[in-house]
Amino acid sequence: MSDDIKTKSGISRRDVLTGPGKGAILAGTIAAVGGGAALMASPAAAAAKNEVAPGELDDYYGFWSSGQAGELRILGIPSMRELMRIPVFNRCSATGWGSTNESIKIMRDGMMQETKDFLALTGDEVYDNGDLHHPHMSFTDGTYDGRYVFVNDKANTRVARVDCKFMKCDKMIEIPNASSIHGLRPQKFPRTGYVFANGEHRVPLINDGTNMDDVENYVSIFTAVDGDSMEISWQIMVTGNLDNVDCDYQGKYAMSSSYNSEGATDLAGMMEAEMDHVVVFNIARIEAAVAAGKYEVHNGVKVLDGRKGSDLTVYIPIPNSPHGVNTAPDGKYVMVNGKLSPTVSVIQWDKIEAVFQGAEPRSCIVAEPELGLGPLHTAFDGQGHAFTTLFLDSQMVKWDIDKAIRLYNGEDVDPIMAKTDVMYQPGHNHTSMGETKEADGKWLISLNKFSKDRYINVGPLKPESEQLIDITKDVPEVVHDSPTFAEPHDCVIVRRDIVNPDSIWKRDNPMWDDARKQAEADGVVLEDGHDEVIRDGNKVRVYMYSSAPVFSMDQFTVKQGDEVTVYVTNIDDVDDLTHGFSLGNYGVCMEVGPQATASITFIAGRPGVHWYYCQWFCHALHMEMRGRMLVEPA
Amino acid sequence: MSDDIKTKSGISRRDVLTGPGKGAILAGTIAAVGGGAALMASPAAAAAKNEVAPGELDDYYGFWSSGQAGELRILGIPSMRELMRIPVFNRCSATGWGSTNESIKIMRDGMMQETKDFLALTGDEVYDNGDLHHPHMSFTDGTYDGRYVFVNDKANTRVARVDCKFMKCDKMIEIPNASSIHGLRPQKFPRTGYVFANGEHRVPLINDGTNMDDVENYVSIFTAVDGDSMEISWQIMVTGNLDNVDCDYQGKYAMSSSYNSEGATDLAGMMEAEMDHVVVFNIARIEAAVAAGKYEVHNGVKVLDGRKGSDLTVYIPIPNSPHGVNTAPDGKYVMVNGKLSPTVSVIQWDKIEAVFQGAEPRSCIVAEPELGLGPLHTAFDGQGHAFTTLFLDSQMVKWDIDKAIRLYNGEDVDPIMAKTDVMYQPGHNHTSMGETKEADGKWLISLNKFSKDRYINVGPLKPESEQLIDITKDVPEVVHDSPTFAEPHDCVIVRRDIVNPDSIWKRDNPMWDDARKQAEADGVVLEDGHDEVIRDGNKVRVYMYSSAPVFSMDQFTVKQGDEVTVYVTNIDDVDDLTHGFSLGNYGVCMEVGPQATASITFIAGRPGVHWYYCQWFCHALHMEMRGRMLVEPA
Repeated sequence: MSDDIKTKSGISRRDVLTGPGKGAILAGTIAAVGGGAALMASPAAAAAKNEVAPGELDDYYGFWSSGQAGELRILGIPSMRELMRIPVFNRCSATGWGSTNESIKIMRDGMMQETKDFLALTGDEVYDNGDLHHPHMSFTDGTYDGRYVFVNDKANTRVARVDCKFMKCDKMIEIPNASSIHGLRPQKFPRTGYVFANGEHRVPLINDGTNMDDVENYVSIFTAVDGDSMEISWQIMVTGNLDNVDCDYQGKYAMSSSYNSEGATDLAGMMEAEMDHVVVFNIARIEAAVAAGKYEVHNGVKVLDGRKGSDLTVYIPIPNSPHGVNTAPDGKYVMVNGKLSPTVSVIQWDKIEAVFQGAEPRSCIVAEPELGLGPLHTAFDGQGHAFTTLFLDSQMVKWDIDKAIRLYNGEDVDPIMAKTDVMYQPGHNHTSMGETKEADGKWLISLNKFSKDRYINVGPLKPESEQLIDITKDVPEVVHDSPTFAEPHDCVIVRRDIVNPDSIWKRDNPMWDDARKQAEADGVVLEDGHDEVIRDGNKVRVYMYSSAPVFSMDQFTVKQGDEVTVYVTNIDDVDDLTHGFSLGNYGVCMEVGPQATASITFIAGRPGVHWYYCQWFCHALHMEMRGRMLVEPA
Repeated sequence: MSDDIKTKSGISRRDVLTGPGKGAILAGTIAAVGGGAALMASPAAAAAKNEVAPGELDDYYGFWSSGQAGELRILGIPSMRELMRIPVFNRCSATGWGSTNESIKIMRDGMMQETKDFLALTGDEVYDNGDLHHPHMSFTDGTYDGRYVFVNDKANTRVARVDCKFMKCDKMIEIPNASSIHGLRPQKFPRTGYVFANGEHRVPLINDGTNMDDVENYVSIFTAVDGDSMEISWQIMVTGNLDNVDCDYQGKYAMSSSYNSEGATDLAGMMEAEMDHVVVFNIARIEAAVAAGKYEVHNGVKVLDGRKGSDLTVYIPIPNSPHGVNTAPDGKYVMVNGKLSPTVSVIQWDKIEAVFQGAEPRSCIVAEPELGLGPLHTAFDGQGHAFTTLFLDSQMVKWDIDKAIRLYNGEDVDPIMAKTDVMYQPGHNHTSMGETKEADGKWLISLNKFSKDRYINVGPLKPESEQLIDITKDVPEVVHDSPTFAEPHDCVIVRRDIVNPDSIWKRDNPMWDDARKQAEADGVVLEDGHDEVIRDGNKVRVYMYSSAPVFSMDQFTVKQGDEVTVYVTNIDDVDDLTHGFSLGNYGVCMEVGPQATASITFIAGRPGVHWYYCQWFCHALHMEMRGRMLVEPA
């Protein structure tokens, strides 16, 4: 250990060993600065720094993707406790998401007819699965505004929105022409505005099976969704594929990475080129092209051509298979993470205009530090430091952006400040408010793909493992390990004052517009229910309200074979007083929040006595809250 | 505060204020002993006593129900971290549970034909939902043996089993004749043996719609499932309904509570009688009756008559709507919790034989302390103390069993030792190893139904709230609040040395027997895959293996309209190296654990190029692990 260490990193062994964290042996971290393997702070010293005591509240909302589980999760930060699951692209046994009429409507309103026809082949109305990678909150003027969280579905090429007033998905659209929406980011400035969505996989633009061998003309599609209307504003074809995306704080550009600039269809081909690229989208030019009619319409969407040679895009060469794209809170720089290259390429946003004017593409790169093996994503503390995940090294590297630029300019400085071991193989990372101009430098999350021996053994399928890291001090410190079910890819951490949900539904919510209209046609007021079933041929409608501990009807009678729709309106006007409706041996259930209406339609296919009951605990007499559906045999 | 407090409770204010916990102001708890409202220990003092530091392991496996979410959860205790979700009665977007051929087989093998026919009406093979209330581990000689966890489905009248070697559901059966399986417990002695399952709702025994008005002859059915074969050994009809159940440590009896001894179909009727009952099942007598052929067969199951007047059962009157039934670890007593009565009725197991011989039914009751409002469930520390949840009071009351008996015998003692506030409205509770003879008195969990303002606001649907309570000291102390998604009803807490899962699947697991047989018929070795699709009319089978970061096939071609089955065998033999198979815009995905095979069947209903990819992060080149299904137009 030499004085060089202090010079390069700004910390000395003495400082660490005698500072506030002196109980911890941090020599490992220093060794990392000197190039060796890093150790984390000792568990004993690190324990419990994130504890939120009983009765106290978390400081941040964490919006967590769940990957192939298909839902959005809300965590409390720093406690790392899961506070809510919001079903989006999955089916949910508890809430009836994917089965209730209201959820099916949301899932189908933006679905292509081709997909409806396909699902109908097996009697389904909605998909059974989704793959939700990237949750991002809507922005106004460069920071979160608490309105919405937008999410992607890689599996079935969708984008959805969660209304943060009620914390339910309120819009979902299928993205035509594209294949596998992966990277997704909302416009930061002036507001969201656009939600940018990457089609990861290259497919024929007219994907009808007539041109499957013409691999060279497969395309990836970049989509701009209007975050307010959830309609597609425009799409643009690119060269290569599209992985992750971010945009600037000026409202001028979006930028996507491509790990398959080769346009290959196999592993060897995708890895072939030493340089891949990011593609930069010039929003003003694209909007002008749209206004000028320079597009073709496919599946009802305006599609522009942004492949190499277009003046709507520029392609900036980046070493081998870049992955994460992360704009720094200062608004000046964006980091492109090398994946198979040990480097992060630092691009200065305001040098991109020159590239559009013809300058050498890599002239916008102002630094390219070598950080370690497998850099995937970079987060920020808002104080000039960056934190990059190293997948292969299983480390988080803290580095100084300014020093990286000085190094690139020939100065003899080491931008690396510390390396922290994480367990194991980190993908995304994220800092509190870190993708906004209000990055606050409090917490860093490392989303690790493997947990191996990190928890008591739960069989062949292990949890993922996420670690909470305190970044308020010079040397980041892992303070908590958090196991999680498959497979959060990404998260955002939002200051709690920004998010202000309601606790009671408003009766005029559009979610149950169809129910309200049908009730009006039937001469029924939803909140009052109706004492008898309403028969319309073999269609039967049952209107009841719930008020703990009773449903307004304790029995109703239908005929075998009827198509029955049950509407339940929860007239309890009390915080946390959710009711449920489960119909035994019919596979029917739904959540009915306070002052909400929910409905579900099924065939009365089995005769006899079938009990329905409230499955959301509501009262001391909760178990008695039930009634009978009597099905007369056909 | 008088000396009486010390006399009655065994603790004094001085002891508390000067003992090891002296930093905490526990006056509130003492006030409760004196009859006032209780306060919990201050947050600052209670913080972080359950912290499991990074890299350290939890001491216990917690098996948690999820209620209407339909899954089983594994938590680490004391950290309260969710380690795994095991889909059981739900569909799972991540694992493909409910969509893969292997999971559909498990879900349908024990399904009634009537149910298969019903589901077929809407094109479904399995239910979309379940309501999993009670997870209990198999026993040998009065304690957990680590083999299985058994679970009930209240919604669709099922019982299922999770194999603790692989932590997946391996058996599921529908329970005929019954309606809504609620209470469920495995036989404690000599081993499991039987799994007892309560049919909660009364329905006609022949529930075909011909006798729906004959409410008096509706019955509830008690079922004994063979835990080894997962076949039904026998069923027995009872008077009244069936709520919760437990059994003794001698292998003689099971006991179920009834809140609806009235047999009513509405709330007022169910609450009418001041006394309801527990029904005790005499296992030896029932087995003798079965051997003697004293049963009828309905839906292939032997059904006995245990209604009032039968010599197979006795009915013990219990005040108003008893709920939880909990045997104490000493093997002597069982607690029946009063719900609408403020009492817990303490029954001495070895006094029940006399009741079967004709003694007055309540002669087996040896104590009936008044504990507070809404007693629902009781847990034990193995040291003579009981902990009862008070739903209405939102408290956990600690009491002395021996003193309760002495009080019942006329002695002037107060069995109540402490009352601890919980937030809010507790249902089940559970102690570490508390339902076994090895109860260890370390941790108590209170599963609270409402969280209200206890966490940052996540909208109209709030999490449930579970609290971890340290019971190693005289005065229980809440140390951690744990939010949870709907709606864990119950849990068990198992010492970690008892549970020993494998990390890698064994290739001979019966889960994929059908796949193995089909591969053999096709001349294919699953582990080797096959380079071409195998066509059999319009049925196409695709055999591939996965080895990070490739599938053995990077493309295959089928015709539009084909019924395609994809088999994936994960040949990676590495801990935590799970692969996935997702097929884009086809709603198809599945988990494939290390050394496992999984398969899924779908209609190739849309032409064109469709990418499949690995959705379980496996390698630095994970995103490149993909291939194309080329669907030729019809």
